[in-house]
Amino acid sequence: MTTSAETPTAAVTLKSRHLLGIDGLEADEISLILDTAEAMKEIGGRAIKKVPTLRGRTVVNLFFEPSTRTRTSFEIAEKRLSADTLSIATATSSVTKGESLLDTVRNIEAMSPDMIVMRHSSSGAPHLLARMCRSTIINAGDGMHEHPTQALLDAFTIREHKRRLAGLKIAIVGDLMHSRVLRSNVALLNTMRANVWACAPATLMPSHIAEFGVHATTSVDEAVEGADVVMMLRIQHERMHGHYIPSVREYFTLFGLTPERMRRAAADAIVMHPGPMNRGVEIDSAVADGPFSVILEQVSNGVAVRMAVLYLLSGRDSMDPLDVH
Amino acid sequence: MTTSAETPTAAVTLKSRHLLGIDGLEADEISLILDTAEAMKEIGGRAIKKVPTLRGRTVVNLFFEPSTRTRTSFEIAEKRLSADTLSIATATSSVTKGESLLDTVRNIEAMSPDMIVMRHSSSGAPHLLARMCRSTIINAGDGMHEHPTQALLDAFTIREHKRRLAGLKIAIVGDLMHSRVLRSNVALLNTMRANVWACAPATLMPSHIAEFGVHATTSVDEAVEGADVVMMLRIQHERMHGHYIPSVREYFTLFGLTPERMRRAAADAIVMHPGPMNRGVEIDSAVADGPFSVILEQVSNGVAVRMAVLYLLSGRDSMDPLDVH
Amino acid sequence: MTTSAETPTAAVTLKSRHLLGIDGLEADEISLILDTAEAMKEIGGRAIKKVPTLRGRTVVNLFFEPSTRTRTSFEIAEKRLSADTLSIATATSSVTKGESLLDTVRNIEAMSPDMIVMRHSSSGAPHLLARMCRSTIINAGDGMHEHPTQALLDAFTIREHKRRLAGLKIAIVGDLMHSRVLRSNVALLNTMRANVWACAPATLMPSHIAEFGVHATTSVDEAVEGADVVMMLRIQHERMHGHYIPSVREYFTLFGLTPERMRRAAADAIVMHPGPMNRGVEIDSAVADGPFSVILEQVSNGVAVRMAVLYLLSGRDSMDPLDVH
Repeated sequence: MTTSAETPTAAVTLKSRHLLGIDGLEADEISLILDTAEAMKEIGGRAIKKVPTLRGRTVVNLFFEPSTRTRTSFEIAEKRLSADTLSIATATSSVTKGESLLDTVRNIEAMSPDMIVMRHSSSGAPHLLARMCRSTIINAGDGMHEHPTQALLDAFTIREHKRRLAGLKIAIVGDLMHSRVLRSNVALLNTMRANVWACAPATLMPSHIAEFGVHATTSVDEAVEGADVVMMLRIQHERMHGHYIPSVREYFTLFGLTPERMRRAAADAIVMHPGPMNRGVEIDSAVADGPFSVILEQVSNGVAVRMAVLYLLSGRDSMDPLDVH
Repeated sequence: MTTSAETPTAAVTLKSRHLLGIDGLEADEISLILDTAEAMKEIGGRAIKKVPTLRGRTVVNLFFEPSTRTRTSFEIAEKRLSADTLSIATATSSVTKGESLLDTVRNIEAMSPDMIVMRHSSSGAPHLLARMCRSTIINAGDGMHEHPTQALLDAFTIREHKRRLAGLKIAIVGDLMHSRVLRSNVALLNTMRANVWACAPATLMPSHIAEFGVHATTSVDEAVEGADVVMMLRIQHERMHGHYIPSVREYFTLFGLTPERMRRAAADAIVMHPGPMNRGVEIDSAVADGPFSVILEQVSNGVAVRMAVLYLLSGRDSMDPLDVH
Repeated sequence: MTTSAETPTAAVTLKSRHLLGIDGLEADEISLILDTAEAMKEIGGRAIKKVPTLRGRTVVNLFFEPSTRTRTSFEIAEKRLSADTLSIATATSSVTKGESLLDTVRNIEAMSPDMIVMRHSSSGAPHLLARMCRSTIINAGDGMHEHPTQALLDAFTIREHKRRLAGLKIAIVGDLMHSRVLRSNVALLNTMRANVWACAPATLMPSHIAEFGVHATTSVDEAVEGADVVMMLRIQHERMHGHYIPSVREYFTLFGLTPERMRRAAADAIVMHPGPMNRGVEIDSAVADGPFSVILEQVSNGVAVRMAVLYLLSGRDSMDPLDVH
């Protein structure tokens, strides 16, 4: 197992058998996941992108919110590790009561899956289940709370380009109030001692932003100034009309990432977006498709990072994940 | 292959190549399925829950009615046997005519799947298809008619706890009129010489209950008195209002299974429910989650029983299903 | 690798790494696919219908239009070749802009699938993507443009029965205006020097039919007269009312394929339909289920033809596809 930087020491393992959020992960655990993802990425570059690591293991993808992108990424990661996968897309309406959600998950775990990857519109839903159930639970996004594998793939992508996280100026711009991506990224980047700037219109700035440990501003120019990384967040369509944003055109004028605005960033800055993008709303196509953009690399790296998480939580630490099938 | 009771004799096999219902199965066939399921359950307890029994076989799960629970259970069973699985969820609307249903299934079987697991809202749909098609058909629930794998997993669960079926007092309580679970369970339990009591409000009692060969009553107390097994059936939401039930509260008062009511049952009684439960309607949470409850065991056993059915109908009787992959 | 007619010469390969349409394929490429499909069909006749040809390869089925039949056929073909498969059904509504469609596909290909099988309601969508993306794209139907694997499975079925395509009289009858099946079949059959007759009511005849290189007529009797093959096309429900067709009854009277009408065809004629059929609209059940019908063979052959296409586009030409798993 070769990693570009250093071989993860056998002594470091993940303390929890779940991945519920970045909050609670220590720096060496984050590094372990990122180092393991480097090895996993190497598998994705082979002609036969498959290892037998999770052969005979069953992973259930339980999505209470639609998500083609994240579900597809997890499914591909699971299949590359030779796991048996099962995807259940359930309308939230059928599980409106917390009790029913618990019954649904208890029923699934009664069928003895090895892991449950779960997305739910309620913040904290995976944490509740992790306390009540025996299965390993991986949070694939819970309400406006956390989306830990997104933050991990973002960190992985930054580290690939910058060789480090500590000390970088990272600007996160967009709808900060409703974003689980912000929360997970801030938790990770603060732990790794990056220098995070958070930028949003006042209407989309969390009221308790002071507690985030970031530099908050409503000026994109200030956030982007000298930034090593500019991470744009999606504006949900349902926020585009009404109190949050006067108009799409005004949002783009004031907060959209244009080539002009990017000139303020570091010369070797990278531009990120968790997707799906609203071109012409939060980001100009010239930036999204331009030389600074690593947006599609984020998607590629997502598979490697999810393989690493699945592998590390599977408890199969005695097996070399790179053995060919 | 070890089974707790006795090794199934090589002489016993299933007479039909379909599993359309319990009706028509003989006692030794039922025992063969339950004995085989014991061996399959052992596989589910291993770290690698997978055997190559159905490798290279294709099973199509054709669900004309939504069913996360049953479909998931079949899919997991199929994957544990290494079958290739394919799930097709089709709205009944597109196959409103019997002719179209037949065309749909003929098209699928033209692709040479080895087995078709089928759920349909019309009673008798799988029987029609079994006469017209070449494929092996497993009924995963047809209208208000049969749900044979549910009855088999119920019997398996009872046998695990009671070591027998013959002579047990088994109370089935709830919406008997619309329940395929009732019909399949009565057929199985009568064949195995259990003593079945059926209890429902008069409005939910089948008019021809006298032909079922059970003790019918509208008194829960009478049904539960000394029962070895209390099986609660779900009240469908659409029955809760209107003529069938005056109100949810009244139904719970008169028919709901409470800890008080369970005191009338045998000291070592078990409580069952095919799910999904309406807590506070047909069953009190204190009972559902209490010491008598085997409800989640039913779900676990469902996978083993479906593995047994798939294996026995696959015709691969010369292969030991317990060989590791 | 044995084929009934002749072994495909090693010199012939597919020129494009995509299959976007029949248009552009040369006769020897079409023959290569059909010959390869014969070998693949042999696999489908085995007890274990699986070869390791695409082991470790990932195929994404990306369907922007619902299609149980074609998607199922591709999925079974992929699984028989041991590929990992992933199906994404996306409502067209979420990708109304061409830009978004491109972003969706770029995101999927960032996860490094080996091939993308794609259906889309816009004519030309797969061609656009093939120019912009690195992945191998297989067109599973684009708007009213092409449906190449349908034409290939039709040609395979004809060749099985007639041992040739050149010189046959082939009548294609029905809604020619909206049919991608027509376009792909005409392209293929003209390349293979068959003699194609196209028949439709004037309201459903393409205005530029003269450019198709076929004999166009509004008389079914003329089209069917002496035909070796009669291929009926589906009338979409949305065309049945309004200007296109006065009434279902009148359409059946004037254009429906009845046993009487089939008497005009060659004594050994075959009847085809791409499905799903409207019995009693474009075809009489007596014909659909009658001795001339090869409609279910088309479905069976679809799996073999799609296996051939997947295999030939995978670039694994050095591996014998018939090696057992």
